[in-house]
Amino acid sequence: MYGEDRTYKKVEVIGVSKKGIEAAIQTAVSKAHKTLDKLSWFEVGDIRGHVGDDGMVTEYQVVLKVAFQLKE
Amino acid sequence: MYGEDRTYKKVEVIGVSKKGIEAAIQTAVSKAHKTLDKLSWFEVGDIRGHVGDDGMVTEYQVVLKVAFQLKE
Amino acid sequence: MYGEDRTYKKVEVIGVSKKGIEAAIQTAVSKAHKTLDKLSWFEVGDIRGHVGDDGMVTEYQVVLKVAFQLKE
Amino acid sequence: MYGEDRTYKKVEVIGVSKKGIEAAIQTAVSKAHKTLDKLSWFEVGDIRGHVGDDGMVTEYQVVLKVAFQLKE
Amino acid sequence: MYGEDRTYKKVEVIGVSKKGIEAAIQTAVSKAHKTLDKLSWFEVGDIRGHVGDDGMVTEYQVVLKVAFQLKE
Amino acid sequence: MYGEDRTYKKVEVIGVSKKGIEAAIQTAVSKAHKTLDKLSWFEVGDIRGHVGDDGMVTEYQVVLKVAFQLKE
Amino acid sequence: MYGEDRTYKKVEVIGVSKKGIEAAIQTAVSKAHKTLDKLSWFEVGDIRGHVGDDGMVTEYQVVLKVAFQLKE
Amino acid sequence: MYGEDRTYKKVEVIGVSKKGIEAAIQTAVSKAHKTLDKLSWFEVGDIRGHVGDDGMVTEYQVVLKVAFQLKE
Amino acid sequence: MYGEDRTYKKVEVIGVSKKGIEAAIQTAVSKAHKTLDKLSWFEVGDIRGHVGDDGMVTEYQVVLKVAFQLKE
Amino acid sequence: MYGEDRTYKKVEVIGVSKKGIEAAIQTAVSKAHKTLDKLSWFEVGDIRGHVGDDGMVTEYQVVLKVAFQLKE
Amino acid sequence: MYGEDRTYKKVEVIGVSKKGIEAAIQTAVSKAHKTLDKLSWFEVGDIRGHVGDDGMVTEYQVVLKVAFQLKE
Amino acid sequence: MYGEDRTYKKVEVIGVSKKGIEAAIQTAVSKAHKTLDKLSWFEVGDIRGHVGDDGMVTEYQVVLKVAFQLKE
Repeated sequence: MYGEDRTYKKVEVIGVSKKGIEAAIQTAVSKAHKTLDKLSWFEVGDIRGHVGDDGMVTEYQVVLKVAFQLKE
Repeated sequence: MYGEDRTYKKVEVIGVSKKGIEAAIQTAVSKAHKTLDKLSWFEVGDIRGHVGDDGMVTEYQVVLKVAFQLKE
Repeated sequence: MYGEDRTYKKVEVIGVSKKGIEAAIQTAVSKAHKTLDKLSWFEVGDIRGHVGDDGMVTEYQVVLKVAFQLKE
Repeated sequence: MYGEDRTYKKVEVIGVSKKGIEAAIQTAVSKAHKTLDKLSWFEVGDIRGHVGDDGMVTEYQVVLKVAFQLKE
Repeated sequence: MYGEDRTYKKVEVIGVSKKGIEAAIQTAVSKAHKTLDKLSWFEVGDIRGHVGDDGMVTEYQVVLKVAFQLKE
Repeated sequence: MYGEDRTYKKVEVIGVSKKGIEAAIQTAVSKAHKTLDKLSWFEVGDIRGHVGDDGMVTEYQVVLKVAFQLKE
Repeated sequence: MYGEDRTYKKVEVIGVSKKGIEAAIQTAVSKAHKTLDKLSWFEVGDIRGHVGDDGMVTEYQVVLKVAFQLKE
Repeated sequence: MYGEDRTYKKVEVIGVSKKGIEAAIQTAVSKAHKTLDKLSWFEVGDIRGHVGDDGMVTEYQVVLKVAFQLKE
Repeated sequence: MYGEDRTYKKVEVIGVSKKGIEAAIQTAVSKAHKTLDKLSWFEVGDIRGHVGDDGMVTEYQVVLKVAFQLKE
Repeated sequence: MYGEDRTYKKVEVIGVSKKGIEAAIQTAVSKAHKTLDKLSWFEVGDIRGHVGDDGMVTEYQVVLKVAFQLKE
Repeated sequence: MYGEDRTYKKVEVIGVSKKGIEAAIQTAVSKAHKTLDKLSWFEVGDIRGHVGDDGMVTEYQVVLKVAFQLKE
Repeated sequence: MYGEDRTYKKVEVIGVSKKGIEAAIQTAVSKAHKTLDKLSWFEVGDIRGHVGDDGMVTEYQVVLKVAFQLKE
């Protein structure tokens, strides 16, 4: 397919999960895959998280860009 | 709500107002709130503006990202 | 028009063409103009490309943001 | 005083106010001035904010670094 | 005018005002407009400021780039 | 609580753990929670690590900022 | 000449051309060469452009820094 | 050893694994350790990944720099 | 091939050509393809150039990273 | 010690000296070592300075981060 | 003087010296002080240099911004 | 030589010396000049260092890129 004119779109999403960074990525990728379009790849931006009153990380928040090809 | 899987989307907009930076932010936030979705927060990127022939700032242009939760 | 409240939206796309960087930009701009909205300007982000087995650049991939005014 | 050996410390704080960006800066500067030490200057980092259910900005959150000289 | 060859120059200035960020921008824009050339637009870089002994912000210092077209 | 004046402080720490990135984050968050103050959130900066003589990653070092509200 | 004390100055300009990126660079370089001083080199910053109503790129705008030696 | 003149080299690699971010790091570190030289540490750059047709992350791609001392 | 463990290496090169940016990229890609290894893709970093005494761009210098898979 | 859980803290300071950059670094490192905690390493951020009426650099101001291990 | 409206200008220069980084800074500061205007401060950007055929650094090239107040 | 097609390679190294920043640069440049290839220029990245138990800087670590032309 290399060499053919085509266009991709990138959308910025934030996935949240208490299980870890990969789980937060998968949360956002799954949601975007269903809601926006069939995705091809993702790129992680910021990684953040919330801390509970007991000092434990209660969730990971991963900002990522997901990309998909715009249909002809 | 912390700890539950969820996904947010961020959209980049530019608000313009002659009144000032906060007014330019509110212009974009109001528009995005109506047009795109119910917003949760915003993050300011670049701040720019136009200068008139008399050397007065005629408008402020604020690039910002607005974020909202993708519905389940 | 300077001085009037208004809002623009920026969308991130990737244009691909084997002909060169300007052609890759035009590919993405044309597609976004048809698919998303009538564009006003673009801003180039990253420039990348694919290399074939013979060491020739087979395509240019230009990441750019395209902008358009949100209608009143 | 220029030319004399001395040391400053910078601390990162976030000021929050519903009134605007300058008010959010003053909130953080006042608090840091009392809590940490007598400040000399500040540098604005990120500007963010929260949006209410009615699409109005309910508060500005300004990340800034405040600086003060370490006493001899 | 779009499509015609032309050249702009950008100059970096710092505007200072005790009244706020927009006032500091206007101070620098007015000065550059008179001293350098008739400006077209500005882009804000850093925002800093000085803190008085009483913990009040005594002035805002806004680093900005101002732009004007080089005459034919 | 949105809309009320308040101030947060951010502190930069580095958590180290051989178990992985999340464990390194939790190490730093737990320590800062006890030593500095009750934390609200964290933001990951750099991720680094050490490699043993056998080519295995012996520990992950995660630079992060932790944030907490300054008490009234 | 390496090893001799000397000083260069860098000036930021924006070249505009409908023909492409290299033409936009040459436009700014030619203008600065005549208007400012005899240039030695240039460094490209941002690449932007305008889109016409038909979705065609009507001009490329290249922000670049041009450098020249300050005469002894 | 601190205080002795020495030189390190950094090499940029991309590790790929379907198992997660730490596994992708270990893949690249192991390969570089064998192919290039005995490594001392690594620094993570970008984190990216591929998404399959079912919306599941099929692999993590971690860009990292690995460092080793140049022998005397 | 997605999902299989593998490692890529990135090398930074600068291609120079008087013909334009794409030609400078191809110069570096061809050279690296022969000298270093069979390349898969490239990523453009800085774009610079030299200006002759007549104010014409005499060459384009494109800093790019080229990437190739490390063999099993 | 590699492989054991531990936490470091980084603090941002500015060292000032008329003697040069290394002297400004040592000024800040010595002060932080006494005032804050026993330091392990430092990382230079910005380098700035003041210029006297005669055009001579009257002092160097080096922004740096100093790091130390938080005690168990 | 804090609190009074005023404007500064920043100019980007490159100082070159074989003696070291501070000497390269002083070269540019002295030149700009005479050629452009009476300077107040400087900020170091990039530090580069040339290497002779014998592997010795033959000169340091320091890119810096110098600042001065625009007269009333 | 300007205008002729050619290719340079950049390699990232870290020079360490207790004597100062210029000495650390020279350490890395000398080593790379012997080990890798005959260098043309260098570009400083990060400047770091180690602090001894007495609060004295025991060594400077300078991350730099060194560049050399790939032979025809």
